Amino acid sequence: MFIGAQVSLYPMSSRFVDVITSSLQALDPHRPDLRIETDDISTLMVGAPGPLLDGIRDLFTAAARQPEHVTMHVTLSRGCPGEPDDPSCRCDTLSEAQSLPLDERIRRAGQAVAASPGTGVPIDVQFSLYVLGQDRHMDEIYGCIEFLKRSGTFFRSKNFCTRLRGDAGAVFEAVRQAFLRFGPAEGHVTIDLTASANSPSLA
Amino acid sequence: MFIGAQVSLYPMSSRFVDVITSSLQALDPHRPDLRIETDDISTLMVGAPGPLLDGIRDLFTAAARQPEHVTMHVTLSRGCPGEPDDPSCRCDTLSEAQSLPLDERIRRAGQAVAASPGTGVPIDVQFSLYVLGQDRHMDEIYGCIEFLKRSGTFFRSKNFCTRLRGDAGAVFEAVRQAFLRFGPAEGHVTIDLTASANSPSLA
Repeated sequence: MFIGAQVSLYPMSSRFVDVITSSLQALDPHRPDLRIETDDISTLMVGAPGPLLDGIRDLFTAAARQPEHVTMHVTLSRGCPGEPDDPSCRCDTLSEAQSLPLDERIRRAGQAVAASPGTGVPIDVQFSLYVLGQDRHMDEIYGCIEFLKRSGTFFRSKNFCTRLRGDAGAVFEAVRQAFLRFGPAEGHVTIDLTASANSPSLA
Repeated sequence: MFIGAQVSLYPMSSRFVDVITSSLQALDPHRPDLRIETDDISTLMVGAPGPLLDGIRDLFTAAARQPEHVTMHVTLSRGCPGEPDDPSCRCDTLSEAQSLPLDERIRRAGQAVAASPGTGVPIDVQFSLYVLGQDRHMDEIYGCIEFLKRSGTFFRSKNFCTRLRGDAGAVFEAVRQAFLRFGPAEGHVTIDLTASANSPSLA
């Protein structure tokens, strides 16, 4: 299994380098558990979904605590057949998810969101879950949307994606649950996610 | 068939509203052919791949002609089973693609990139093509990567995505060809794309 993300932070500010550099400090506690590589477009993070999503959440929360409008784009991927197996990406939630019916996965995903720690930082997210390489991929996607609607973070449906709104702790836990509990455990699943905070045109 | 995109423009500048507003004028010639709806996170564009990708290219090129570092995120989708059929999204290239073997599709995609008009604006792009709801989805993805490597816009492979570099005209034509000629004509295909220009940390 290979699990990771390409992450880009976009502060809508002329001091964007400062905002990015200072926010990156929030990744420090997670660095021992993640492989991190940066180029001029994005930062690759590889690791288990625990530190991976915690790191992404903490990075964006740190940026959103600054006054500027900031957005983040994340491409999450697990099980891509083109990537090498990586023992650091082992994840018990994934194996467990495979053995459970959809209803039970929806229930456990909701419990995880309810138990997530708050950050005090309100954010908006929109994302798409893609289940590749199997028939009936929409069943898993519709199951995931059902979970999101009950999760307390659902804001509305849009073409091609779902919008979440709430505390960054609950919202990123909802994303992690969507990523882990829907689509086969050994399958190829990706997420295309945009996060936004401090927008001057908040709907 | 329903074809469209969620598009977000991110100028890394405190005058980001001005950059976005002025760049949006580049969409004007394409507005009669597209359905366009904006909220605080992204702009939905629905229409055939001709005006759709031309509009996205012209929007980003207009922003990249300004001095600020600017990025754009695009979620492209065609054939999503959850979306309604829309006659305005009709596309002959798609129907033609279905009847041709992979080698011939790679050849025609390359011809289209070679024939694309230049803009004089150099850009970087990274993107992932997702073919959903069928077995052997990686064959189409590997075929697409083979096309990209021969397209004159290939820069390098990364985890989860491929980087392109070159004139905005050729790069967005390569993206359009990837979107149209790989994956089944009636299938569910998506692209997760990030574009970047004027980056101070250009690799």
